[in-house]
Amino acid sequence: MHRIKVNLGPRSYDIVIGRDILNRLGQELLKLKAGTDAYIITNAWLKNKYGAKLTRALAGCGFNPHFKIVPDSEKSKSLEAAGLVIKDLAKWDKSRKVFIIAFGGGVVGDLAGFVASLYKRGVGYVQVPTTLLAQVDSSIGGKTAVDLDMGKNLVGAFYQPRLVFSEIDLLKSLDKKQLASGMAEVIKYAVIKDPGLFAFLENKYKDVLNKKPAALEKIVVSCSTIKAGIVSRDEKEAAGLRTLLNFGHTIGHAIEAAGEYKAYNHGQAVGLGMIAASDLSRRLGLTGPETVLRISDLVKSYGLPVKLKGVSLEKIVKAHYRDKKFIGKENKLVLIRGLGQTRILRNVPLNLIKKSIQDITLPL
Amino acid sequence: MHRIKVNLGPRSYDIVIGRDILNRLGQELLKLKAGTDAYIITNAWLKNKYGAKLTRALAGCGFNPHFKIVPDSEKSKSLEAAGLVIKDLAKWDKSRKVFIIAFGGGVVGDLAGFVASLYKRGVGYVQVPTTLLAQVDSSIGGKTAVDLDMGKNLVGAFYQPRLVFSEIDLLKSLDKKQLASGMAEVIKYAVIKDPGLFAFLENKYKDVLNKKPAALEKIVVSCSTIKAGIVSRDEKEAAGLRTLLNFGHTIGHAIEAAGEYKAYNHGQAVGLGMIAASDLSRRLGLTGPETVLRISDLVKSYGLPVKLKGVSLEKIVKAHYRDKKFIGKENKLVLIRGLGQTRILRNVPLNLIKKSIQDITLPL
Repeated sequence: MHRIKVNLGPRSYDIVIGRDILNRLGQELLKLKAGTDAYIITNAWLKNKYGAKLTRALAGCGFNPHFKIVPDSEKSKSLEAAGLVIKDLAKWDKSRKVFIIAFGGGVVGDLAGFVASLYKRGVGYVQVPTTLLAQVDSSIGGKTAVDLDMGKNLVGAFYQPRLVFSEIDLLKSLDKKQLASGMAEVIKYAVIKDPGLFAFLENKYKDVLNKKPAALEKIVVSCSTIKAGIVSRDEKEAAGLRTLLNFGHTIGHAIEAAGEYKAYNHGQAVGLGMIAASDLSRRLGLTGPETVLRISDLVKSYGLPVKLKGVSLEKIVKAHYRDKKFIGKENKLVLIRGLGQTRILRNVPLNLIKKSIQDITLPL
Repeated sequence: MHRIKVNLGPRSYDIVIGRDILNRLGQELLKLKAGTDAYIITNAWLKNKYGAKLTRALAGCGFNPHFKIVPDSEKSKSLEAAGLVIKDLAKWDKSRKVFIIAFGGGVVGDLAGFVASLYKRGVGYVQVPTTLLAQVDSSIGGKTAVDLDMGKNLVGAFYQPRLVFSEIDLLKSLDKKQLASGMAEVIKYAVIKDPGLFAFLENKYKDVLNKKPAALEKIVVSCSTIKAGIVSRDEKEAAGLRTLLNFGHTIGHAIEAAGEYKAYNHGQAVGLGMIAASDLSRRLGLTGPETVLRISDLVKSYGLPVKLKGVSLEKIVKAHYRDKKFIGKENKLVLIRGLGQTRILRNVPLNLIKKSIQDITLPL
C-alpha cells in the first residue's frame, strides 16, 4: 500500500493507493475522525457491483453507510442535481456527524465534492475513485464543480477531500474507452513532469492496455505523486504551477466544446490537444519535431485519435476564446521545450494556433 | 471616514464606514483590482432609490455596472434563486473581469456572497450593506448561505468579501422595525464585548431611534470593530471565539423556527433569546439579577419585545434541538458572567433552559 501526502497545512491529506485494499477503507476512515454516518454518492452500476463489499468495509468499523444513487451521466454535474442531493442529504442527516464518500469517476467526484463544500458550509468528504481518470487526476486537488449550459465547471469551489483512496482492482472493470480516456491524462503528467514515466508508457503499453495491475499501480502512484506535489505548492491555481496541468487542455477543451461534447470525449480531446500544443511548441521554436512525434505516437498507441475529423477549425477557435482561463482576448498556453520541460506563454499568435490545429485535421 | 481591517492574511480586507461616502465607492473599488465589470445584486426598491447614484460612483471610475434585481424576501436565499442568478451572471460575463457587489440587507448579502463563492470557483465580491443589521453583522466575516426547507443557512461557504463599505446615510430610509432588528445585534455586541457601548445604548436610545447619524456611525464603528476582531482570530468558527456571536441566537433561532418565521423576526427573536440566555446565566449562578434586568430594559427601550406570546415552549425546545450547532443531543450555549464577560457552556440542563424560556413567556 502506497501513501502519498498532499501538504496543505490544516487541509493536508493522504492519497492511499494499492491492490485489494477496499476492505481497509474503514480503518483509514477511522483515523480521520470525520464522523460516523457515511453518505455515499455513487451510480447504480457501481453500487450493484461493489455496494455489499463497501458496506462490509464500513460497517465493520462502526460506520453507518447510506447510498445515494445519481445518474451516470454528465447531467449529474448540474446545479439542479446538486440541489437534489443536498436536500436528500439534509433529510437523512439526523446525527450531525455526517461525511460524504464519492464512490465513482470524475462526475461523481466533482458532484460529491461540490455537495460536501456547501452542506453546512462544508462537511468532510473522501474520494474513492473508480476510474483511471479519477484516480490519477480529478480525485486529487479539491477542484469541485458542476456545469452550466454556458460552460463546464463554471460553478464550484476549491475544497479539499480528507482522503483519496485509490483501489487499483476497481480498474479491472473499465472498458477500453474509459482506460484510454484516463491514459490521456497519464500521458500529460509524463510529458510535463516525468520523462521516466513517458518511457515506461512507451515500453509497457501492452501491459497497460491489458490492465496488468502492476502497471496500473505504477501509473497511479507516479501520477498521484506528481499531482500531489503540484497541488501542495499551488492549491488554488494562483502561483502558475497548477496551470501546467492544463497542458493539452486549452485546445482540448475547445475541441470538446466544438464537437458539442459528442464528437470527442475528454480524454480523446486532450490527446489531440496535446499533439496540437506540442506542434505549436515546435512552431515557436521551443522543441523539435522528434518530441512532437514521440508524443503523437504515444497517444496513438493507447488507442486515442491523433487526427481531428468532422469538427471545424472555426468552431474550435471560437470555443477556444470562451475558455474560462482566458482574461479578455489574452490566451495562455502551456507549451513544452522537451519532455518534462514546460513553458507557459501568453498571447500566442492565433495564426500559429490555427496552423497547429490544421496540422492534426484530416481533410473532409 | 473610518477604516477597520479584518486581518486574514491573503484574505484580509477593509471595512470602510462613513457618512455621505457612496460617491467614493468607485475609488475604493479601484484599489482592489478586482475587475472592471460590476454585477450588482440588489432589490427593486434600492435600485430605484440609489441606482443612479451608485452608477455614477462606479462609471466615474471606469467600471461597467450591471444591476441584477432579486425579490426582497427570504425566498431569494434559496438554491433555486442562487442558480438563476449564477446563470444570469454567466450570460452577462463576457469580459472575464467580473466582480460582484451586494447592495442590500442580509438576504442580498448572503445570496451575493454565495454566488461569488461559486461562480468560476470564486470571484471577488464587495458588501455595500444597506440595513443596520447588515452593516453591523452579516456583511462582515464571509459567512455566505442559502436556506433549505429543512433549515436556514444549511448550504453555503466561508468566503470573505474584498471590501465592506458601510454608508451610514443609507440607514436613513430604514423603518422602525428594520432599525430595531439591527439593534438586537448591536445589543449583543455590547453585552458580549463592550460595556461602554452598552452604557451608550442606554443613554442615547432617543438619538438612535431618531436615526441621528452620529449615533448610528458610532454604533456601526463599534460593532464592526468587535466583529472584525473576532473574525480575524476565528475565521471559520473553529477556535470557539466566533461562537460568542451566537449569544442570544441559540434560543433566538429556536423561537424564530417555533414561530414559523412569522411570529417573530430575527431581531425580535434574538432580543428574546438574549433575555432568556441572561436569565439562564443567573439561574446557573454566573451573574446576578441586575444584569438580566439591564439587558431586558435595553432590549425594551429599542422597541423589541421582552415577552414571548403565542409560541409554545414545546415547539421552542424541539426546534432548539435541531440547531445546526449541536452535535447529537449535546447543546452549547453562550452565557454571561456580566457585561463584557462571556462563558460557553455545554450540556446545560434542559429543565433550566425551559424555566428561562417560561420566565419570558406571557400566560395565554
